[in-house]
Amino acid sequence: MDQRLSLITLAVGDLPRSRGFFEAGLGWTPLSVMDGICFYQLNGLGLALFRRADLEADAARPIDGGFSGITLAVNQRSREEVDAVYARALSSGAAALKPPEPTPWGGYSGYFADLDGHVWELAHNPSCTIDAEGRTLFSAA
Amino acid sequence: MDQRLSLITLAVGDLPRSRGFFEAGLGWTPLSVMDGICFYQLNGLGLALFRRADLEADAARPIDGGFSGITLAVNQRSREEVDAVYARALSSGAAALKPPEPTPWGGYSGYFADLDGHVWELAHNPSCTIDAEGRTLFSAA
Repeated sequence: MDQRLSLITLAVGDLPRSRGFFEAGLGWTPLSVMDGICFYQLNGLGLALFRRADLEADAARPIDGGFSGITLAVNQRSREEVDAVYARALSSGAAALKPPEPTPWGGYSGYFADLDGHVWELAHNPSCTIDAEGRTLFSAA
Repeated sequence: MDQRLSLITLAVGDLPRSRGFFEAGLGWTPLSVMDGICFYQLNGLGLALFRRADLEADAARPIDGGFSGITLAVNQRSREEVDAVYARALSSGAAALKPPEPTPWGGYSGYFADLDGHVWELAHNPSCTIDAEGRTLFSAA
């Protein structure tokens, strides 16, 4: 798995309220806002605020004492690469949460838990660009 | 607060075991390894594996149902900037966990919880470089 991160996702209970904290409060500007999810382009990676129940469903993992609702995504350049890295994670001791599968947004994604229960996503998102330095650039939807 | 991230920290129960997952397992190379903590340089930000009890102490927050042991750090260019951004976060509704203070590693750091309980760190680390694009580059200790 490349030594980089593409997206941090934070589960939120009330998206407009949490957007207010990061935007009106801390001065951030969203890249794109959809129903239940909002993306911010950071320095070579993205941060998403995602409705709590939707993240639980997407990651196939209830948010509880072992999962506070933060996921760490490493985008890959193809579906085959997602499958290969996912297999490598499992053979290294990770626990499968959701094997990679096509997503409603036109991509391909799977989740695993690392040895300490932290939730990682491996994804192929055709609308993302990954540059030579490993920076992931999102497109405004 | 600048729209960027500097460091993701993952709490781990057994550092050598977790290093084995990321290094022998997934192929990552550490930048620096110290007692109880290990740093990886990613694409313009860092990722640290940090002994669970030490992260609880550092963040002044027990790891429980609301905090799974992931912190998101935004490094600042000065102590004054840490104080200013910390004040802005609190005035925007964040909960204070540890007000900024000098750290044993020669820096300056404070933690707050955002509206959903996610734990953020604001830090000044004199040995980090923040470039014009907001990428945080760590130095090998």
